[in-house]
Amino acid sequence: MNYDILSRVSSPEDVKKLSGAELVELCSEIRGKMLETVSKNGGHLSSNLGAVELTVAIHRVFDSPKDSIVFDVGHQCYAHKMLTGRYEKFDSLRKKGGLSGFCRPNESEHDSFYSGHSSTSVSAGLGVATANKMLGSEAYTVTVIGDGSFTGGMVYEALNNGGRSNTKHIIILNDNKMSISENVGSFAKYLAVIRSKPGYYSFKATTEKTISRIPSIGKKITKKLFDIKTDLKNKLYSQSTFFEDLGYRYMGPIDGHDIPVLVDALEAAKKVNGPVLLHVNTVKGKGYKFAEEDPSRFHGVGPFELSTGKTAEAAETFSEKLGEYLCRYAPDNRNICAITAAMGLGTGIESFRKQFPDRFFDVGIAEEHAVTFAGGLAKKGMVPVFAVYSTFLQRCYDQIVHDISLQKLKVIFAIDRAGFVGEDGETHNGIMDVAFLSTIPDIIIYSPCCYRSLEADINNAVNADRFAVAVRYPRGGQSEAAKKLRYDCVEFATYGNKEAEICIVTYGRITANAIEAVDALSETGKDVFLLSLNRIKPLPEEAIEILLGKKHVFFFEEGIRSGSVGEKVGSGLLEKGYAGTYRLIAVDDSFVSQATVPELLKEYKLDAASMINIISEEFSSGGKNKT
Amino acid sequence: MNYDILSRVSSPEDVKKLSGAELVELCSEIRGKMLETVSKNGGHLSSNLGAVELTVAIHRVFDSPKDSIVFDVGHQCYAHKMLTGRYEKFDSLRKKGGLSGFCRPNESEHDSFYSGHSSTSVSAGLGVATANKMLGSEAYTVTVIGDGSFTGGMVYEALNNGGRSNTKHIIILNDNKMSISENVGSFAKYLAVIRSKPGYYSFKATTEKTISRIPSIGKKITKKLFDIKTDLKNKLYSQSTFFEDLGYRYMGPIDGHDIPVLVDALEAAKKVNGPVLLHVNTVKGKGYKFAEEDPSRFHGVGPFELSTGKTAEAAETFSEKLGEYLCRYAPDNRNICAITAAMGLGTGIESFRKQFPDRFFDVGIAEEHAVTFAGGLAKKGMVPVFAVYSTFLQRCYDQIVHDISLQKLKVIFAIDRAGFVGEDGETHNGIMDVAFLSTIPDIIIYSPCCYRSLEADINNAVNADRFAVAVRYPRGGQSEAAKKLRYDCVEFATYGNKEAEICIVTYGRITANAIEAVDALSETGKDVFLLSLNRIKPLPEEAIEILLGKKHVFFFEEGIRSGSVGEKVGSGLLEKGYAGTYRLIAVDDSFVSQATVPELLKEYKLDAASMINIISEEFSSGGKNKT
Repeated sequence: MNYDILSRVSSPEDVKKLSGAELVELCSEIRGKMLETVSKNGGHLSSNLGAVELTVAIHRVFDSPKDSIVFDVGHQCYAHKMLTGRYEKFDSLRKKGGLSGFCRPNESEHDSFYSGHSSTSVSAGLGVATANKMLGSEAYTVTVIGDGSFTGGMVYEALNNGGRSNTKHIIILNDNKMSISENVGSFAKYLAVIRSKPGYYSFKATTEKTISRIPSIGKKITKKLFDIKTDLKNKLYSQSTFFEDLGYRYMGPIDGHDIPVLVDALEAAKKVNGPVLLHVNTVKGKGYKFAEEDPSRFHGVGPFELSTGKTAEAAETFSEKLGEYLCRYAPDNRNICAITAAMGLGTGIESFRKQFPDRFFDVGIAEEHAVTFAGGLAKKGMVPVFAVYSTFLQRCYDQIVHDISLQKLKVIFAIDRAGFVGEDGETHNGIMDVAFLSTIPDIIIYSPCCYRSLEADINNAVNADRFAVAVRYPRGGQSEAAKKLRYDCVEFATYGNKEAEICIVTYGRITANAIEAVDALSETGKDVFLLSLNRIKPLPEEAIEILLGKKHVFFFEEGIRSGSVGEKVGSGLLEKGYAGTYRLIAVDDSFVSQATVPELLKEYKLDAASMINIISEEFSSGGKNKT
Repeated sequence: MNYDILSRVSSPEDVKKLSGAELVELCSEIRGKMLETVSKNGGHLSSNLGAVELTVAIHRVFDSPKDSIVFDVGHQCYAHKMLTGRYEKFDSLRKKGGLSGFCRPNESEHDSFYSGHSSTSVSAGLGVATANKMLGSEAYTVTVIGDGSFTGGMVYEALNNGGRSNTKHIIILNDNKMSISENVGSFAKYLAVIRSKPGYYSFKATTEKTISRIPSIGKKITKKLFDIKTDLKNKLYSQSTFFEDLGYRYMGPIDGHDIPVLVDALEAAKKVNGPVLLHVNTVKGKGYKFAEEDPSRFHGVGPFELSTGKTAEAAETFSEKLGEYLCRYAPDNRNICAITAAMGLGTGIESFRKQFPDRFFDVGIAEEHAVTFAGGLAKKGMVPVFAVYSTFLQRCYDQIVHDISLQKLKVIFAIDRAGFVGEDGETHNGIMDVAFLSTIPDIIIYSPCCYRSLEADINNAVNADRFAVAVRYPRGGQSEAAKKLRYDCVEFATYGNKEAEICIVTYGRITANAIEAVDALSETGKDVFLLSLNRIKPLPEEAIEILLGKKHVFFFEEGIRSGSVGEKVGSGLLEKGYAGTYRLIAVDDSFVSQATVPELLKEYKLDAASMINIISEEFSSGGKNKT
């Protein structure tokens, strides 16, 4: 495919110079480039394909970066990246040092706010719009948010705060009928009703456009016409009261793939005095047959074959194993329920949904509610399992503290994508769950390094008396190396010579790297014992006793240092009078950028080679801890 | 006042036996008991006074604990406590070992869910109602939630999930026109419109009641009548579409102080097939002149004089000092803004609201939105200060991580009620903020022990280049003892002999206790050096260097142990080869119950006497660390 027009667009100004026919061609090229790149690099495809015309229209009407465009989540920002000077770099999407798959202000001044987690864009946009108003700026703020994100409560907090705020804030509800999987809940049903009505702008816009072209007097007439239409609309569209009750001028629904209609509607939105909600209907996966037919599969996708839509055969994963184990226990334990916040596919519990639909709850992108809802279920004796990505669990810290832990309720947190996730970058790495969950009284945390431990941990959790239990595991599958471990007890496993003076402590996925390091060091004559924790809170006392007998302890941890298990172990050893050396290797106080997982493990010195180097150097002639 | 009827009510069954006239008298007695107790013990008065008739009606119609009553926050649960067997104990309200001011399932089977933080009750109630449905139970779940709590986004997440759920879930919106201070936002304005309409039940209920009394056939006719009325209502009350769009049968608004109307409406709600939202108008502070006139002052109140409504003259507090400093800097720095989540009074920034109304934002009980909104403001160069209680900050962990810290935006968190708060108990102690904030990259945390440090810290924060800055301080005022400190640098202060082998490390309020301990130990011949940290993240390197030279380090911390500063210091010392002893005294892995602050400091060994004992014992003949 050639990208004649796209390659000539180096800023939004260039979009404004194109003819109507060129704009249509531009959209086609953007889709081509998206498909070419995502089929190689993986990425978020369906939502991005759906937002092409909308993005072109936005850059036609608004002046970024003077006007701020705030994308929710960022699943709709690829076209925006291509139109704001990043087309040339687009091949580097999601690679180490390359373009992010989300909005990143450190990448371009056109990305006005970091994105990654859902439902924040109305709040951020309102903040920007309010600051503009206070500073006397005439700039517009445009929030682009999908209907899926509307299931997150922050949106309502922001609408409640921003309605009738007299800011130049235009919220575009990009309604593609689903979030990641099929959209759920009452709001989706409500949207379905108004989506099917004839669009307000689709039959009026052309007239308006024609009239506004008449110079000078045109605008005034447009304003007048606009007021008449608003009256008309207020009579016709009682279904829009939801947004109008919250103080927003509602416009729509309009066809989100018709650029002239979009442009007209956006121009009209600019003229409204106060905040606007523009409702746009789009088709998820638009323009790529396989994505239109199965948008969920192409929501977030790995590399695939462009001509057939075929993705690589998925290897077995911890996620699938979770689904398998839950389905195994569910027939006997009829109280087990599964809860997801719109991530049924990613978390591997689709199998549970199919087999036990009455015990499956997709609550929408609403992690806070998910947890407290689980608390209510548990209160009546159900055994809810909330399957959630580590990074999204950050949203419900308070609910875990008060609505689960304080109540001593048995809720199971199946925490997927714990540790590095790779290409999705800063906003998606699961490096904080251990630190923040550890601050919560009574919660039990397991971090299995293999399926065998995962199964034991889920089984323990399901059969626990009470208290919250978290079981965290990485993206992807287990390493074969983990099979070498000795299971001394359910709380930890070991490897190597128990009598060795040097000890590696770790947990989770990188246990496999530690096994490799122990083997390699052994070959160079260095005797190293490995202690792999399965239960990381509370810490197994027996494991601490073992460490007290060592001379050199190295703790490797795939997580943030501050609040880490390694800090707890270090401090605990000191309190108990440990007199040997101690070294903690963890992710220092920083965010982790995109790269492949192996690249990240190497960068943060958590791969086998780094472990070998660190231990070898410690005992080389220059090291402070000579044996 | 005598409590003839109230003293005869030992369970909800007794409420059902009373005549209409006795019910009215009962309400009067409940108000009397509330006023008598709260005027002595302090507590949440205004909302509780407003919910008396509503609570009586609920217990008249529903069968607790078979039916679950879930109160949001718990500011409306005093009458409920009195009617469910706790009248005799009511004098112990908010005292150590006494009744909690919130719902506590460990106190009574009638308290179906812990409460304390806002906007969780619809989620919890939906969980309970869903479990009942799954278990085949016919029990009802009644959620009682104020209009203020409706500004929290979790409510919408839950409504979205629960609408059309076919559960026996009755949500009572107790609309008293305000949350803690005056209600804010679009939703409040929306409610104001429908609140003024004639109540649906107020003119229809009596007929229905009469008919339903006709046995057997009565119910059928009622159902029929009900359907007719619903049709009528659907025509008349277009203003209720907000809730109906979300899938709830809307009823109301009705007079929340008219027991027969309330009872009829609740009976009707039971007959609806599916979830119901019943809108009830109440008067905050009802029945106590001073509270009706100034409900905010009596929202949460300390002891007061019953006959005059006069509260004790407030001593100077950290909260007031915050307001004072912000008002001092604001004229020169025109970008400073203050944000509160409905806690303008409690956080001391009312003075800022009065002087700089255009730069003051009360966003409702919406901490998540508050943070991201602040991020948007900061993005455009404003300097937002979010004044918030430590315990409520727990709600926006993810937003601080992603929308502030990751973006390197300068937002100031003025964290009030850090540490023990006393009488409000488990859900309100601020013992976790240090632990969870410390996990966040780049954030700077100050914990001043006196006004002088608070002022320096706020000044530093306002003038920082970028990055989030948290300044945390306790409820109440500074101790005079803090004036003895030597300010070696802005990052820490010291006291006592620098050459002493024994060192106390601490931060914040209990520095004063440590000073007292140092003085007392000195009198017994024990030389102790005190290091009081002002900046606790990042840890001042110079302070760590000092500790490395000590033989015995005791770290006292008014916060949760797991993730504490003490753990970081301990682990860090071990890594640096520290060879002395180390002891960390912090709040162990548990929730802290209600008691006065001095009682709690004693219980957790953080008062001066405990410090003296711990250090003395360590060096007594039996101690392991003889000097």
